[in-house]
Amino acid sequence: MLRFGVIGYGYWGPNIVRNIQSQTAAKVVAICDKSEKNLKRAAGANPSVRVTSDVTELLNSTEIDAIAVVTPVWTHYDLAKSALEHGKHLFIEKPFTSTSAQAQELIEIAARKNLTIMVDHTFLFTGAVRKIKQLVDDGTLGKIYYYDSTRVNLGLFQHDVNVLWDLAPHDLSIIDHVLNMKPEAVVATGQAHINNMADVAYLTLYYPEKVIAHVSVNWLSPVKVRSTLIGCEKQMLVWNDLEADEKIRLYDRGVNITAQEGVYEALVSYRSGDMWAPKVEATEALKVEMAYFVECVTTGKKPFNDGESGYRVVRMLEAAEESLAQRQEIRF
Amino acid sequence: MLRFGVIGYGYWGPNIVRNIQSQTAAKVVAICDKSEKNLKRAAGANPSVRVTSDVTELLNSTEIDAIAVVTPVWTHYDLAKSALEHGKHLFIEKPFTSTSAQAQELIEIAARKNLTIMVDHTFLFTGAVRKIKQLVDDGTLGKIYYYDSTRVNLGLFQHDVNVLWDLAPHDLSIIDHVLNMKPEAVVATGQAHINNMADVAYLTLYYPEKVIAHVSVNWLSPVKVRSTLIGCEKQMLVWNDLEADEKIRLYDRGVNITAQEGVYEALVSYRSGDMWAPKVEATEALKVEMAYFVECVTTGKKPFNDGESGYRVVRMLEAAEESLAQRQEIRF
Amino acid sequence: MLRFGVIGYGYWGPNIVRNIQSQTAAKVVAICDKSEKNLKRAAGANPSVRVTSDVTELLNSTEIDAIAVVTPVWTHYDLAKSALEHGKHLFIEKPFTSTSAQAQELIEIAARKNLTIMVDHTFLFTGAVRKIKQLVDDGTLGKIYYYDSTRVNLGLFQHDVNVLWDLAPHDLSIIDHVLNMKPEAVVATGQAHINNMADVAYLTLYYPEKVIAHVSVNWLSPVKVRSTLIGCEKQMLVWNDLEADEKIRLYDRGVNITAQEGVYEALVSYRSGDMWAPKVEATEALKVEMAYFVECVTTGKKPFNDGESGYRVVRMLEAAEESLAQRQEIRF
Amino acid sequence: MLRFGVIGYGYWGPNIVRNIQSQTAAKVVAICDKSEKNLKRAAGANPSVRVTSDVTELLNSTEIDAIAVVTPVWTHYDLAKSALEHGKHLFIEKPFTSTSAQAQELIEIAARKNLTIMVDHTFLFTGAVRKIKQLVDDGTLGKIYYYDSTRVNLGLFQHDVNVLWDLAPHDLSIIDHVLNMKPEAVVATGQAHINNMADVAYLTLYYPEKVIAHVSVNWLSPVKVRSTLIGCEKQMLVWNDLEADEKIRLYDRGVNITAQEGVYEALVSYRSGDMWAPKVEATEALKVEMAYFVECVTTGKKPFNDGESGYRVVRMLEAAEESLAQRQEIRF
Repeated sequence: MLRFGVIGYGYWGPNIVRNIQSQTAAKVVAICDKSEKNLKRAAGANPSVRVTSDVTELLNSTEIDAIAVVTPVWTHYDLAKSALEHGKHLFIEKPFTSTSAQAQELIEIAARKNLTIMVDHTFLFTGAVRKIKQLVDDGTLGKIYYYDSTRVNLGLFQHDVNVLWDLAPHDLSIIDHVLNMKPEAVVATGQAHINNMADVAYLTLYYPEKVIAHVSVNWLSPVKVRSTLIGCEKQMLVWNDLEADEKIRLYDRGVNITAQEGVYEALVSYRSGDMWAPKVEATEALKVEMAYFVECVTTGKKPFNDGESGYRVVRMLEAAEESLAQRQEIRF
Repeated sequence: MLRFGVIGYGYWGPNIVRNIQSQTAAKVVAICDKSEKNLKRAAGANPSVRVTSDVTELLNSTEIDAIAVVTPVWTHYDLAKSALEHGKHLFIEKPFTSTSAQAQELIEIAARKNLTIMVDHTFLFTGAVRKIKQLVDDGTLGKIYYYDSTRVNLGLFQHDVNVLWDLAPHDLSIIDHVLNMKPEAVVATGQAHINNMADVAYLTLYYPEKVIAHVSVNWLSPVKVRSTLIGCEKQMLVWNDLEADEKIRLYDRGVNITAQEGVYEALVSYRSGDMWAPKVEATEALKVEMAYFVECVTTGKKPFNDGESGYRVVRMLEAAEESLAQRQEIRF
Repeated sequence: MLRFGVIGYGYWGPNIVRNIQSQTAAKVVAICDKSEKNLKRAAGANPSVRVTSDVTELLNSTEIDAIAVVTPVWTHYDLAKSALEHGKHLFIEKPFTSTSAQAQELIEIAARKNLTIMVDHTFLFTGAVRKIKQLVDDGTLGKIYYYDSTRVNLGLFQHDVNVLWDLAPHDLSIIDHVLNMKPEAVVATGQAHINNMADVAYLTLYYPEKVIAHVSVNWLSPVKVRSTLIGCEKQMLVWNDLEADEKIRLYDRGVNITAQEGVYEALVSYRSGDMWAPKVEATEALKVEMAYFVECVTTGKKPFNDGESGYRVVRMLEAAEESLAQRQEIRF
Repeated sequence: MLRFGVIGYGYWGPNIVRNIQSQTAAKVVAICDKSEKNLKRAAGANPSVRVTSDVTELLNSTEIDAIAVVTPVWTHYDLAKSALEHGKHLFIEKPFTSTSAQAQELIEIAARKNLTIMVDHTFLFTGAVRKIKQLVDDGTLGKIYYYDSTRVNLGLFQHDVNVLWDLAPHDLSIIDHVLNMKPEAVVATGQAHINNMADVAYLTLYYPEKVIAHVSVNWLSPVKVRSTLIGCEKQMLVWNDLEADEKIRLYDRGVNITAQEGVYEALVSYRSGDMWAPKVEATEALKVEMAYFVECVTTGKKPFNDGESGYRVVRMLEAAEESLAQRQEIRF
């Protein structure tokens, strides 16, 4: 039985608690929050769980094996460091940390103390992303040309982070997971209109072998869009996360190049065949992820969304922000 | 009666001829094309019009007042220069020229000889763009925050230009027309997958007063998308050019900022009201444009899609290509 | 304070309880269900409410002013009759009863004892239907020509009622409310494929003044559709209940008839103008309805979704079923 | 070489002429129309074809093997009869005739004179319907439960026929072709709002083995809909003819019934798998149909869209109109 202390019971905390409690091999023993109102909500919904505003209670408790950090990003480093130093495994919200240096330090502590870090890149556990990952890995799609994501809506303006740090972590964690490549450089652009933080931003990641990824994030869109194109050699994929069914569509479309002897120009032809929408699992992503965390801690298996994965996303955000400011590429 | 010689009768030429012939104050007197096959088609469809493969016939003819150049971009400069030097008004396909220096030279010749240049930025004459322009100019939308266009499809690969020069001129001419501002800098990214020319590209234009424009063009998309978001202070607009009806949707949505005395953080609230899809005129854009050309030549009025407009689009393309290669901003 | 006893805590009961509890002037004092499992759920979610499997406890309680009947339709008549005879106001699920004769009897008892009956035609309290009702009543739409609804999906097969009794009550209650007319006749068709109850059915209602209504219901559709067309003289309305935003669209489209002197045929022309999607209130329908019930009981106001409204829907279902069997119209 | 005379050069005639001319084994030798304006258009577009306003020229010409009748339905019977009596094969617009008695007479004449009749049920030759037919015939869909079509739009009001005769022939010919069954009865409803002809109508066809078909046609819809559901045992199909691509979608969805021993109620469960959009041929339907006509005349093969097929559609329309008037089923 893996026993959790959960720090933070705001918007996302209740989901974490509920999905830990739904596991047979895990349970929440304590919840901590600074806000009296949140603690009341926590107590009401979880009568059998200790609630407290004192984080040291959780850190010092011998009944707690793992800490879930579900607080704003600027608090992550301190809380995570304390948790690890107290010998607790760590489940932590994305983005992992505010800086890549912090991320590296946490990774080192965990390694030294043989603890598991899992960064809550929830999207990786959705049926859609698991299906995409499978289609890439089993060769159905063929060589990837580009990954292009649009994630725009009206609000919610964050007080402490810009639109890149708010929305792009989803895409960057998915790109990192699906492409499984190290980017060479990033170019980002954007603008702040409402206050002094960018509310519209675009970033391009350059990968080896001509792979390119583009992410568009925007807090000022009248319509909500969650759509991704993945262009590949064999098949092309459209993922529309707002569709109730058929979130993923595979198109048997592409470009064929025929080199012709004695002819200067290659012959370009187009292929257009069937479309196929594979069934996508509907299990709640966070439930799948939590079971994976329990499994990793229990067996010592290294999660793919570990501290390194969290570090890579933070590093991309950091570099993107730098690029946005300097208006030139930042190489990794 | 404005008498035209038309050079080039490939894909677009027949539309130019048909729309000149539909004007009461204009007519085509001669068509020139290098290809025997095209000339036959031209003769079949236009029994009363002279056809020839010799461009000098058109240039030297005293029966011709204006030349329409409907040929690949790399031929534009030479043909346009000859036409102007022979005292002909010029209607010319987009992009205007291969380089901004060529564009400037043609503008100077036309100015010296008091001739009209119109660059065929056809989209400016669609009902959709005319409606957008009106909504911006009459203040319905309020201050513009950003213009964000996606123009992607499968193919057609061009042999002589990359995806930027193929697809972006549409967006750049519209952005130039609608924003009516001079950009300060451009940042472009992209990649070539199939041959050595970029088939996926993104560009961001920085304008004064925090206005930003982004264009996404792609020859490797499984689905065709022609969609534009325009985020503004009062209303927000979505233009989906693939919709049969309701191409334009206006959303009474936005962000309100309330500064609060004594409070550090401004209060951000969201406004969400009705949506409205104004009726959009369905008259063929090229017909409206051709009437405008005839009017401009006849009255001496300066068209808004004149050589300068053509120059600005070419200059943006040139700078974008440079930025794509250097991976840094190019300032104008 | 209006004090409720709730009978039935299956699928819909928890929503009824929650929305009573959310009212300031009402509260649930007891919940009754035959199933041990449901009672446990009820007790867990409502620690301060008495739970019991004995319905007479609720009927005899002097602490209870109103009974909410949230059970299968075949139990409605007995439960409702007992509630009324014990002097309780009645909030009851749709369809009101299994036969129109039962409905009439309940209406008479309530009238005699001066009690309020409200039938839970929840859809009438959605933002969409309230907006439609307003647009009809204030003359925006003009004279109604037809009302055409499609309500299809895969399953859920009911064990005790066919697809007409399962899905059509929604449409019939809305049609009754919006048209506010008495139908003259009904023609229904349909077929049973899976078991002996119709799983696909269509019904046409004939109203005075050439108004016609059509309802298509289907348990065997691969896709879920909830869409209604309302054709009127001035404007035409499309209601797509599956849209997240813009559920209602108003089209300034129509047909104009011009009688011409001395000409045999009238001139038919078409009008096609703007489309407008008014903002639709998002408040939970059941919450609005429950506040209305409290208001009606308290003030003695007659609800529009009273027993008579419930009767009319049951009468239409009864007649439709008869028409389906006889394959001819049934007149009212 | 099959030589055609074409009678009628209004809206559809030019398409017939163009598609005859595109065949290698057929050609148009004469076009006849009463209208001077239409004849001028015909001559302009077909310089090598004789044009005339005298139909007897065509009937008496020994150079003509087949007559295409492309005129309003009320003229069909007389023109078709004359053509057949003059020994010409017949290609005729839908609906075949104004009455089923006329259809039968024409079929008898053709049989006696060994001539081919083809009724222009163009939709049967679209890629979509050919794909549907194939999926039904090869067993992919399994046993058919229902066919449900919606064909609505704003206008065009016809002066001589109601909405049933205008729009439903498309659906009825497809239903006849795809189901390949004889209907037992029809029930139709509808209403006339604008003039004295029904502008909104619904019809239900009852077939053996619990197969049911429903058609909704409407001239007063603000939006254009062309959508068909086909519910079957193994797979379910949605055909949206307004989609540019993916007109046909196959859903691996359905209902499974498990009879359980000793249990009164059968267990109903739902199956929900992948969706698949097979590629649909884009060849112009009329071109395919015309090649088929030439083939049938030349080889003596009986077309599936022969006079009998035309008769069946007219008979269904006739019966539907009768049912609409009498408000009861009409049995075949």
